Amino acid sequence: METEVLEFRTGSDPQARDITSEVARFVADKGDGIVQVFCPHATAGIALIETGAGSDDDLLDVIDHVLPPGFDYRHQHGSPGHGADHVLPAFIAPSITIPVLDGRMQLGTWQSVVLVDPNRDNPRRSVRLSFVSG
Amino acid sequence: METEVLEFRTGSDPQARDITSEVARFVADKGDGIVQVFCPHATAGIALIETGAGSDDDLLDVIDHVLPPGFDYRHQHGSPGHGADHVLPAFIAPSITIPVLDGRMQLGTWQSVVLVDPNRDNPRRSVRLSFVSG
Amino acid sequence: METEVLEFRTGSDPQARDITSEVARFVADKGDGIVQVFCPHATAGIALIETGAGSDDDLLDVIDHVLPPGFDYRHQHGSPGHGADHVLPAFIAPSITIPVLDGRMQLGTWQSVVLVDPNRDNPRRSVRLSFVSG
Repeated sequence: METEVLEFRTGSDPQARDITSEVARFVADKGDGIVQVFCPHATAGIALIETGAGSDDDLLDVIDHVLPPGFDYRHQHGSPGHGADHVLPAFIAPSITIPVLDGRMQLGTWQSVVLVDPNRDNPRRSVRLSFVSG
Repeated sequence: METEVLEFRTGSDPQARDITSEVARFVADKGDGIVQVFCPHATAGIALIETGAGSDDDLLDVIDHVLPPGFDYRHQHGSPGHGADHVLPAFIAPSITIPVLDGRMQLGTWQSVVLVDPNRDNPRRSVRLSFVSG
Repeated sequence: METEVLEFRTGSDPQARDITSEVARFVADKGDGIVQVFCPHATAGIALIETGAGSDDDLLDVIDHVLPPGFDYRHQHGSPGHGADHVLPAFIAPSITIPVLDGRMQLGTWQSVVLVDPNRDNPRRSVRLSFVSG
């Protein structure tokens, strides 16, 4: 299987990072199939949303509404709010597949591939890309 | 890769539309593998839920609880609530895969494939189906 | 396609059950590709989260915050809260894919495969594992 691990520096603030161009580069020479975008971390997810018109930052705000940092979590490691980070991947999964035709992702006009990392404690993140021919 | 784009008229009201029969027809002659159901829009998702006993409409109501239309979104385009529509795909992803054996999806008795479209502004929606042999 | 159905007894309490070892065993002899973990039920999901430090039980609590059992659901079958169980799979999907290299899932250190079953009414659950070579 053609597969590759990308490394991102996401820093110490919550981040919704557009990684569309990196995924596009990976699939560019790969014909038809599906690309799997997989984040091997327990406190991050992968989303397909619009970026550049505010929705990426809206997502970070809404995450705090949906999964309140101050909720009474059992998980006690890390910075305040880290308990919430640990349930996030159940709702924003760290794995998604995207169709590829002739080396191009078949995304809609306003869709971007976004690494969602609310976690202040892990400044570096990996994303594994894998291609399965169709 | 065997792939096909379906077009749906979802109108100007939020809709949870059962598209199981269309996906079943697509895979009917395709043997064993996985079918990927992918919605190339930034304000819609794909869900596997029961339909016909109220849960599809329950889902539309619960979306307004989870992602309040009146939240202070940065995204300002479109009708009221459109900011919420734009974070929805992070929580209800627009991509899902389903196992297929001998041309039949291996869904549970009560599972349907549902196009979740809360968006009042886009009356037409596409769904791309792709089949990867196993 | 190589595929197998596992059976789990999840009992009458909500449960977030770690099934990583069962999936690891399934892929152990299968080379490179992606494994699809699919739950054919309308009231359960599959999540990739940390287990063993409280986050699995945190998830069950947070589900009741995100999808309140007392919400005014149309769906009226089953025990109290069953209406919430039926919208859960829209947010915690019953299908996820994981990359596999040389018979080993490429999970992060803290990621486990978890069957999320809030449903008190179904004491037995199936999970279908399918492998697609890459």
